[in-house]
Amino acid sequence: MKYGIIGFSGKMGKAIENLFSKEGHELVYKKDSEIEELIEKPEVIIDFSLKEAFSDTLKIIEEKEVPLITGTTGLEDTDFEKMKEVSKKVPIIQSFNFSIGINIMTELLEKMNDYIDETYDIEITETHHRFKKDKPSGTAILLEKILNSKIEKVHSKRLGSEFGEHEIEFASTGEIIKISHRAYSREAFTKGVLLSAKKIINLENGFYTFKQILNKK
Amino acid sequence: MKYGIIGFSGKMGKAIENLFSKEGHELVYKKDSEIEELIEKPEVIIDFSLKEAFSDTLKIIEEKEVPLITGTTGLEDTDFEKMKEVSKKVPIIQSFNFSIGINIMTELLEKMNDYIDETYDIEITETHHRFKKDKPSGTAILLEKILNSKIEKVHSKRLGSEFGEHEIEFASTGEIIKISHRAYSREAFTKGVLLSAKKIINLENGFYTFKQILNKK
Amino acid sequence: MKYGIIGFSGKMGKAIENLFSKEGHELVYKKDSEIEELIEKPEVIIDFSLKEAFSDTLKIIEEKEVPLITGTTGLEDTDFEKMKEVSKKVPIIQSFNFSIGINIMTELLEKMNDYIDETYDIEITETHHRFKKDKPSGTAILLEKILNSKIEKVHSKRLGSEFGEHEIEFASTGEIIKISHRAYSREAFTKGVLLSAKKIINLENGFYTFKQILNKK
Amino acid sequence: MKYGIIGFSGKMGKAIENLFSKEGHELVYKKDSEIEELIEKPEVIIDFSLKEAFSDTLKIIEEKEVPLITGTTGLEDTDFEKMKEVSKKVPIIQSFNFSIGINIMTELLEKMNDYIDETYDIEITETHHRFKKDKPSGTAILLEKILNSKIEKVHSKRLGSEFGEHEIEFASTGEIIKISHRAYSREAFTKGVLLSAKKIINLENGFYTFKQILNKK
Repeated sequence: MKYGIIGFSGKMGKAIENLFSKEGHELVYKKDSEIEELIEKPEVIIDFSLKEAFSDTLKIIEEKEVPLITGTTGLEDTDFEKMKEVSKKVPIIQSFNFSIGINIMTELLEKMNDYIDETYDIEITETHHRFKKDKPSGTAILLEKILNSKIEKVHSKRLGSEFGEHEIEFASTGEIIKISHRAYSREAFTKGVLLSAKKIINLENGFYTFKQILNKK
Repeated sequence: MKYGIIGFSGKMGKAIENLFSKEGHELVYKKDSEIEELIEKPEVIIDFSLKEAFSDTLKIIEEKEVPLITGTTGLEDTDFEKMKEVSKKVPIIQSFNFSIGINIMTELLEKMNDYIDETYDIEITETHHRFKKDKPSGTAILLEKILNSKIEKVHSKRLGSEFGEHEIEFASTGEIIKISHRAYSREAFTKGVLLSAKKIINLENGFYTFKQILNKK
Repeated sequence: MKYGIIGFSGKMGKAIENLFSKEGHELVYKKDSEIEELIEKPEVIIDFSLKEAFSDTLKIIEEKEVPLITGTTGLEDTDFEKMKEVSKKVPIIQSFNFSIGINIMTELLEKMNDYIDETYDIEITETHHRFKKDKPSGTAILLEKILNSKIEKVHSKRLGSEFGEHEIEFASTGEIIKISHRAYSREAFTKGVLLSAKKIINLENGFYTFKQILNKK
Repeated sequence: MKYGIIGFSGKMGKAIENLFSKEGHELVYKKDSEIEELIEKPEVIIDFSLKEAFSDTLKIIEEKEVPLITGTTGLEDTDFEKMKEVSKKVPIIQSFNFSIGINIMTELLEKMNDYIDETYDIEITETHHRFKKDKPSGTAILLEKILNSKIEKVHSKRLGSEFGEHEIEFASTGEIIKISHRAYSREAFTKGVLLSAKKIINLENGFYTFKQILNKK
């Protein structure tokens, strides 16, 4: 596959290039705040840059008529409106979290909602490396919102070089169920991007979430 | 509720009586291999005895026209045939595992089947007290059978007075999901029996699994 | 062994009687706020009652000249002074926590102090049943005090019927060590009391902590 | 510090160079099976190569009169004899495992030996990435040997990209203690090498294990 990266010098950009090149895909377009380099028209453009640059990104894919996968965070309602407009011309896959595992976990939590009620005790714990400042993690907030039950607080641990772990415990008197997810590296996210890239080539125009892609057989 | 217990002097029989009496239900019929005592016609009979006595149990509920909840283990195909015959006259709920948590866990594993393929590594671990001789546990075998993937082996730990824990791990390169269940006491099972007893009173004649009861809204 | 219990109708009193009678020891003296019953002079008196009654307890053992094992909580400096005075006449073993495992854990934490410095991240987590109101648990506070490092906060989880779990994590970049203890039941404490009772019979007069007893070969 | 690496193109060699250069140390000598390059006399030589090359390594440090840190695996009795001979002229630090955490864990296990007896149940579990063929891991065998108790078997899990986790559980009826260690990356080992390098400069001639270095204040 011939692909492009917007935000190619960022951590996710580099990690994507790393995984895609391992699998033999060819980087034919790259852009960040300082450089834009086009070797050939890409079959898909992957965007992990800043929300300030997102309008430009949409213009680029509209002009080039290239499908877009975007994981840029902080997008606002107006960005989503524009994205949906542009998605009439090219397919767009958007998500704030391209981890396959985290998306599976959200499905498990929705399943739990069918069974648990207010008599259950629930605890959410997230553990990240010492350099992560924000507490709780964005993913913990995302998981918490899925649960019907009200959660008193999230436990945030900051330990060494833990890449990222999330655990949810559901207890009644007599028994307890735990569901946990650990990411080992950025590969947890880049694999979801690669899966999306492989699928987008055959998608009809339209706006898709990563979860829709994951659930598509 | 007025209820009866067949196998009332066994461990499960005693634990059921304990929970039911806490909630104000009245034991009006009890039976084991030596004694049969009828105070009043029960609204439901709960059977946790031996498979050898199961034919008698079916006769009793047929004669008395009382709904049955049975957790007796080792039942065979012929037992199930008879049960289905009798269930035309009274509702019957049957399960080899009345733990609500384990039944929820089976639902989570079926969900996992939608997402994981042969590229995932899976490990199953069960931990029980030192007096449990059989390895792996019946529940571990039950859980293993739900998974589409082939499991090489189950890890069986025997530790002190652990009542019973089951953990399943699913890993790809980059991330791992763990789902675990721990029972703290026999209450993990008696609560499922109590839930069944409350529901059976309003059920139409027929044969039901505990899972169907749990999934009934 | 012939033994007595002060506070025999409390939860610990009953659990002690249960374990001691299983091992063939004979309860010859019992006392609580309402009843005092002496069948025969005991070889040891075990006290798990209220701090308000502790002066009376000391008088009783002084008069009867019987060794004392006490786990009564909330004792103050003056109680300890009196205890040390009385211990000139009979041996006394005192502890706020008779769990063998927790006492071993304190030794492990002291060992950790030899190796870790301020570059390590440390997290303490305690999990108890939903009915435990105080946060963090007394044991968590005890463990925290052993560590040389300053701990920002203790994570307190309240889940179903968990009897009591304490976990301490030590992380540097690159690796993490976890030490955890779980008690399954009051037996975690009564076994330490039984061990103390067996040893006190051969002790010289004096004041002993449970840890000293545990470390005595 | 000016340092040299024997086996510089291996995984550990690269990881050592990476950490040492981050801290401003200068690689002035490097050697592997194909290349030998000397810029300046190093203050210490670090050897993570093959046992076949170990005799040469000893000759080099003897000639150059440079202290040696060696983590080469598979060394035999004759290698140790030669090493001890050479260590009369230069200090040598040797270990098959330079992880600070694993070495702390061995200390904790020795502490456990003081308290546990044959009434305890013990389970050892090691988890590594799917590409690790040997079961159980060398570290699991090392840990098992420290324990006085006989262990029936080690549980080996192979899951995704787990770098390496070891857990030991000790249970009596009533309570359980768990001690676990996880390495996140090769940094778990290179930090121990760096610590050794800083200390070796001030060491007298002689043969030292990494554990002795770690325990030196």
